[in-house]
Amino acid sequence: MQRTQFGELACSIARTLDVIGEPWSPLILRDVWVGIRRFDAIQADLGISRKVLTERLKWLVEQGILDRQEYSRRPPRSEYVLTAKGTELCGLLMVMVTWGDRWTAGDAGPPVLYRHHDCGHTGHPELHCSYCDRPMNAGNIDILPGPGAAAPAHSGRGTSDRTARTRRGAGFR
Amino acid sequence: MQRTQFGELACSIARTLDVIGEPWSPLILRDVWVGIRRFDAIQADLGISRKVLTERLKWLVEQGILDRQEYSRRPPRSEYVLTAKGTELCGLLMVMVTWGDRWTAGDAGPPVLYRHHDCGHTGHPELHCSYCDRPMNAGNIDILPGPGAAAPAHSGRGTSDRTARTRRGAGFR
Repeated sequence: MQRTQFGELACSIARTLDVIGEPWSPLILRDVWVGIRRFDAIQADLGISRKVLTERLKWLVEQGILDRQEYSRRPPRSEYVLTAKGTELCGLLMVMVTWGDRWTAGDAGPPVLYRHHDCGHTGHPELHCSYCDRPMNAGNIDILPGPGAAAPAHSGRGTSDRTARTRRGAGFR
Repeated sequence: MQRTQFGELACSIARTLDVIGEPWSPLILRDVWVGIRRFDAIQADLGISRKVLTERLKWLVEQGILDRQEYSRRPPRSEYVLTAKGTELCGLLMVMVTWGDRWTAGDAGPPVLYRHHDCGHTGHPELHCSYCDRPMNAGNIDILPGPGAAAPAHSGRGTSDRTARTRRGAGFR
């Protein structure tokens, strides 16, 4: 019920949360990303119930985030790998880590570090504009309605309200 | 119970999800970001129950993401504004939007566009390395244990397992 509702909003935040909008999915994604790919290994790593893990993996495969690959026929065993869509979602996890390192890690410092292949140094991702390459953040953009904004004539009350408000927020600085 | 559990993991993804790990918090954050700052306006925009919105706003204020500011004494009325911690979290929302635009928006296209003040063009955030400025993504980094990785001697089973696995994942490419 809630899932359908979020996925149907003309909002890419809501639609993304429709795919990973509870804590387990991003953590399962993280596990597969760092090489923990098999059901039992993920289950042991996260301490998640088998029932919930089964549901979450099925959902992530249906959403095209993970692929299931059989690595043994007898007994039948599979492992999970990231699709292109899932790999790009890990970029979001990296930004999540950057924020968490800065605001939640405390004196202990970051739990993990990223070593960048291009320069060989550890660093974290920073946001740059795809057009001009300069730093981009929530404070140096205007938010404008895009082509996929809900069309008032074809939308329900909630969606139409939301569009109006997105426009009103366009002058935000 | 689940909240405490995620916040205690030596993992910045889990700790960030401990703050915004359900769909409403990011959407409330989005509303405040685009200028929908008052309880009734957020409630109307999201169609969220007053009880849940009250709880979520209280939590986001306690976490230092939002500040509550009184704008009228009689009757007592307040609005919510982003703190620095909350503003940086909006960078995460921007990356969420980029992924959602690419993978969930379909033929209709992006619901909103970002116009970058520096160049005046619309664009989306791309991830660049904080050390060398070149593009950084989930495929061109190694993941190494950081200073805040859980120390096996002082941690429970789950956390210790997790550290070991993070190390094992360090060679991931």
